[in-house]
Amino acid sequence: MKKKNVVTIGGGTGNFVVLTSLKKYPINLSAVVTMTDDGGSSGMLRDELGVLPPGDIRQCLVALSASETWMRELMNYRFPSGKLRGHSMGNLFLSALEKMSGSFDAAVERASEILRIEGNVIPVTLEKVRIVAFLKNGKIIKGEDRLDEKIYTAGAANLRKISFQSGAKANPKALQAIRQADFIVVGPGDLYASLIPNFLVSGIPDAIRKSRAKKIYICNLMSKAGYAKKLGVIDFVNTVEDYLGVKFDYVVYNNHRPPSSLLKKYAQGRESLVEWQTISRFDKEGRRYVGSDLVNRTAPKQVRGDLLKRSLIRHNSSKLGKVLASIILGK
Amino acid sequence: MKKKNVVTIGGGTGNFVVLTSLKKYPINLSAVVTMTDDGGSSGMLRDELGVLPPGDIRQCLVALSASETWMRELMNYRFPSGKLRGHSMGNLFLSALEKMSGSFDAAVERASEILRIEGNVIPVTLEKVRIVAFLKNGKIIKGEDRLDEKIYTAGAANLRKISFQSGAKANPKALQAIRQADFIVVGPGDLYASLIPNFLVSGIPDAIRKSRAKKIYICNLMSKAGYAKKLGVIDFVNTVEDYLGVKFDYVVYNNHRPPSSLLKKYAQGRESLVEWQTISRFDKEGRRYVGSDLVNRTAPKQVRGDLLKRSLIRHNSSKLGKVLASIILGK
Repeated sequence: MKKKNVVTIGGGTGNFVVLTSLKKYPINLSAVVTMTDDGGSSGMLRDELGVLPPGDIRQCLVALSASETWMRELMNYRFPSGKLRGHSMGNLFLSALEKMSGSFDAAVERASEILRIEGNVIPVTLEKVRIVAFLKNGKIIKGEDRLDEKIYTAGAANLRKISFQSGAKANPKALQAIRQADFIVVGPGDLYASLIPNFLVSGIPDAIRKSRAKKIYICNLMSKAGYAKKLGVIDFVNTVEDYLGVKFDYVVYNNHRPPSSLLKKYAQGRESLVEWQTISRFDKEGRRYVGSDLVNRTAPKQVRGDLLKRSLIRHNSSKLGKVLASIILGK
Repeated sequence: MKKKNVVTIGGGTGNFVVLTSLKKYPINLSAVVTMTDDGGSSGMLRDELGVLPPGDIRQCLVALSASETWMRELMNYRFPSGKLRGHSMGNLFLSALEKMSGSFDAAVERASEILRIEGNVIPVTLEKVRIVAFLKNGKIIKGEDRLDEKIYTAGAANLRKISFQSGAKANPKALQAIRQADFIVVGPGDLYASLIPNFLVSGIPDAIRKSRAKKIYICNLMSKAGYAKKLGVIDFVNTVEDYLGVKFDYVVYNNHRPPSSLLKKYAQGRESLVEWQTISRFDKEGRRYVGSDLVNRTAPKQVRGDLLKRSLIRHNSSKLGKVLASIILGK
């Protein structure tokens, strides 16, 4: 039987987890990856070398690499001190390849070769893009890095919409992967930093709408601070669909509480567990909801030298893989 | 017939050229490499990350790599701007591997694997060493980086001796390679920055003296500024043997003038062609002198982002290879 073509769309740690969850199954896997990161190591490289942001791509390459553990760890290694502080080795590697070859696309291909990638890692666009957020109070915030800080401390409920500073065309490889997809998997990931920026790229939402692929959304475990009420799975689905312009066929969500020790840390940062209690298996518009225990019971280690705060409550890739395989492979 | 074991001892660009010249011949090649660099990219990494200097090792790895051209170029790629300016990708790669594994030896082994090295690249010591120069006027200069600048602008004839700030033991792998060598090839390279520092490592000169290997010295093409008279091949041989404590069996030297366009640039820097005119084929102490046209007719390109001045008149690796093969393989 022909292998199913599965395309993930996202960025960040969530993308790493979903790719890890799927890589052991017999499918053709392609990762379409957001290109709007402008903070941390990627931000410095954009500013100082004029390259495209490598961080999200690096995470996908590491997830799909068949290399030995130490090689994958090397790519995620962050320099702890001096002028190199905060840079991950894999980011420098991709940026040097881009500067040398003059093309980020060629850089990703060469890195894929060195890291022996099983699948395809595809930047959603090869143009330089920057996010702009329009708030309900009329203010405008430029840059993904500042977005995260500003929206959530100022109240995400205050956000009217996000957009690109100037338009960007889709990477033809991303469009082709979406056209040939049997399944499209969106998320998990930060809505405004990792998921929605993919749908702001000209040609991407249209290709997804026209695709015959079944569309799966994997809902986040936690919601960020700044909302008047606690958010539920449906709120996430609505927001993503607003930008995507098409309904999901499946919504995969967590229906178990993480360890309370981890939840306490989040409460300090005013983040809260996404609510699932009122969800049925189907809704009127034909979405199917698949709830399961998806939580990783142990917190990931903080990487020394990492300049950014990372989420502690994450999806468990093997639990997530089983749920996705049941949908994609029907078993 | 059993392949000959050939050990090169040196550092810098000269080492790159001699390894390139030998790699196509059917021999077992090991490069014992100086570890005293404390300028440029290597110096910054020493200071900021506390690692061993990777630059000389990187050049040898690239010389012996069977990887595709772009991979070798990537290792030599230097970041042109920002905080990363001047660092070569290969240096960062080796330093990250060292920080991750906690061992420079393990780092070199892993890099050798990734770069598919044909032969062995062996740091002469795994201890942190710094050069100290004692001048005849009583002054003391610390650090290889400052040495280069101070000795040659102040007059190299003023140098009494160089030494290490504190003693360092040899890498056991370096001693083993020397013990098993059929031929030991020293140079070409800067005497005080690349060659002699190897003989300051405890155990190395003794192992070379006790070795049954034939010892070959490849003389530099140019001498640095600051001498009262022009230096000849014999001056170089005498200086290296003083530190090594044993006589060479063969001295390979250039006996042709480089293009005058290149020589003019050197004259501005007060460097001059090493003189060969008075040399016979043998001397009283049994050294055999092998003269040939060894000059590369085209100047290498200056690498963008490189913070150091590099020599423009270099040995031609294929000409040098033929001369060395005639000695080592007898043809």
